[in-house]
Amino acid sequence: MSSTQGHVIKCKAAVSWEAGKPLVIEEVEVAPPQKMEVRLKILFTSLCHTDVYFWEAKGQTPLFPRIFGHEAGGIVESVGEGVTELQPGDHVLPVFTGECKECRHCKSSESNMCDLLRINTDRGVMIGDGKTRFSKDGKPIYHFLGTSTFSEYTVVHVGCVAKINPAAPLDKVCVLSCGISTGLGATLNVAKPTKGSTVAVFGLGAVGLAAAEGARIAGASRIIGIDLNPSRFDEAKKFGVTEFVNPKDHDKPIQQVLAEMTDGGVDRSVECTGNVNAMISAFECVHDGWGVAVLVGVPNKDDAFKTHPVNVLNERTLKGTFFGNYKPRSDIPGVVEKYMSKELELEKFVTHRVGFSEINKAFELMMKGEGLRCIISMDS
Amino acid sequence: MSSTQGHVIKCKAAVSWEAGKPLVIEEVEVAPPQKMEVRLKILFTSLCHTDVYFWEAKGQTPLFPRIFGHEAGGIVESVGEGVTELQPGDHVLPVFTGECKECRHCKSSESNMCDLLRINTDRGVMIGDGKTRFSKDGKPIYHFLGTSTFSEYTVVHVGCVAKINPAAPLDKVCVLSCGISTGLGATLNVAKPTKGSTVAVFGLGAVGLAAAEGARIAGASRIIGIDLNPSRFDEAKKFGVTEFVNPKDHDKPIQQVLAEMTDGGVDRSVECTGNVNAMISAFECVHDGWGVAVLVGVPNKDDAFKTHPVNVLNERTLKGTFFGNYKPRSDIPGVVEKYMSKELELEKFVTHRVGFSEINKAFELMMKGEGLRCIISMDS
Repeated sequence: MSSTQGHVIKCKAAVSWEAGKPLVIEEVEVAPPQKMEVRLKILFTSLCHTDVYFWEAKGQTPLFPRIFGHEAGGIVESVGEGVTELQPGDHVLPVFTGECKECRHCKSSESNMCDLLRINTDRGVMIGDGKTRFSKDGKPIYHFLGTSTFSEYTVVHVGCVAKINPAAPLDKVCVLSCGISTGLGATLNVAKPTKGSTVAVFGLGAVGLAAAEGARIAGASRIIGIDLNPSRFDEAKKFGVTEFVNPKDHDKPIQQVLAEMTDGGVDRSVECTGNVNAMISAFECVHDGWGVAVLVGVPNKDDAFKTHPVNVLNERTLKGTFFGNYKPRSDIPGVVEKYMSKELELEKFVTHRVGFSEINKAFELMMKGEGLRCIISMDS
Repeated sequence: MSSTQGHVIKCKAAVSWEAGKPLVIEEVEVAPPQKMEVRLKILFTSLCHTDVYFWEAKGQTPLFPRIFGHEAGGIVESVGEGVTELQPGDHVLPVFTGECKECRHCKSSESNMCDLLRINTDRGVMIGDGKTRFSKDGKPIYHFLGTSTFSEYTVVHVGCVAKINPAAPLDKVCVLSCGISTGLGATLNVAKPTKGSTVAVFGLGAVGLAAAEGARIAGASRIIGIDLNPSRFDEAKKFGVTEFVNPKDHDKPIQQVLAEMTDGGVDRSVECTGNVNAMISAFECVHDGWGVAVLVGVPNKDDAFKTHPVNVLNERTLKGTFFGNYKPRSDIPGVVEKYMSKELELEKFVTHRVGFSEINKAFELMMKGEGLRCIISMDS
């Protein structure tokens, strides 16, 4: 039993006091985990677009002060009442969505959209008692996505914690908490390309490259990357992308360009930009008879996906996925094992590293569009 | 060897001389089958909407004189060069779409949209030599869908002929040539409901009822029929429909009505009307996480399928199907066996019977929307 168990922990956290303003490293209080909660010591965290999006809070509900962060690796410090699957010392990845194991979604083999713990970007408190576990000088600090990993310690619902192989290096597998699993699962679990097939990936950011990595693992023989930024192609080659198409280089719709390149269409496509026109292209570029298009990117509120119904009737399939269809507790440990067995390569996603005190640098890199993942070490 | 083999056969056919005008029973000449073709003696044929649609030729390319008909059962009279799988006497169903067994679609386990023999409504000739096999007094009469079953004898490409169990009653299994297989396969092969699930069927015509029959066979516990015509519900009960929703009875979108009836959405939906708003409702009424919507009905040229991308991202699947994803030669014999083993019930689809000389009555019934299938006996 750790000496901190049952006590408030004082530790460092990067607090966002105001939308768009640099985070401030503060000493905060982290309350003990309550019923069905776990308190984690975070060792490594990385930055994802979603953190930046809600930190900027342009159009989102502003909820400040708040502790952001949702891609991370850590160790269980203590557990609350009712937690039997985890114990202090377990190596874990906190996840922004959960798996209660009791609802219809958790019981369905087809869904990972847990009714109880589905992502909620506007809730800044724990679902058990509607309160925060973070405070500074007695004043509450809001949570983010139920994870708030930009803190040396955090409290997470047990349903949002994946227990992983303790031999896995947390400074690498921490990226599996969100974006990388999302892209990888979109391909492996949803698009399911067969060996030798052709896969188009729209958007070559971290999620799109993870989708390409999935296609590489599945044995696709052609992986066509589509992006407006030609500088991304060189990096994309490391992820198995064999051909590059820049819509800016063509006068005709990109679905037509792809159909001409592939004798009628690609076998599978994965859309990782969130742009609604890219979604439509991703659907219309798949081959009739067997093509499957998978949407991953998050659209704007007022977007409309629009296509002629004959494109559907000609035996195309359109699917959407959330977190790559992975159930956090049941499936993420297996994704870590894919890395351990060298089937999945994660090193190439890690392009930058900073110490916790330099966390604002990670924000700057992301806003400049530089690199894929910046790992933040909590101990420096 | 039949005495007619290699010779022109003179026989009766119902010729459509002009768009929308009653068919005329004429004596026509049917040339012998050429390379990869088969000449069939038709015993029973039935009438499908598609015949009426192209006979009316409102907006379609008019191609007259023409012999319509594409749902039928018959016996092989003779075969042309290169035909090894069939011989005189075989019991067969001609099919409006084909399976060459050589193209990428035929070789794919996911597609039935044969490159060579895919449905072509505008071609009135055989694909081998671009000529017709029908004539009257030396003047050619056009084919329809490569089948032209409103004739005592017809010539069909071997790839459009399913060889079936000779014990199967042709006056019943003839309906499996088109609409009934389309609806049945949409459910069994594409929507794939699990035992105990909830299935919504949009449109309770013959195709929709066949989709419901598929859901009944699959063991769905709730089958919700949606139709604007309340008189169809009583008949629909025979096909396993357990609940009926008439959009006219509701002020709110039907997808919302269905979501409220089913705690968030149905597990599967099958759209058999061709109305684009019904297609959108069919997609949006399936449950997030696992719902699958299958489009069957043929839309208008200018329709747009439109939905918010989040409906896709929440792990719904949209699929289209053509002829229920059945490959005519490989799969239809198995559907006939489903009838022989009493798993599939066909009798309830046959609501009317007429002799060949009364074929125009079948057109009248269909135009009045009466009944499901009218079987035409060629020998009376």
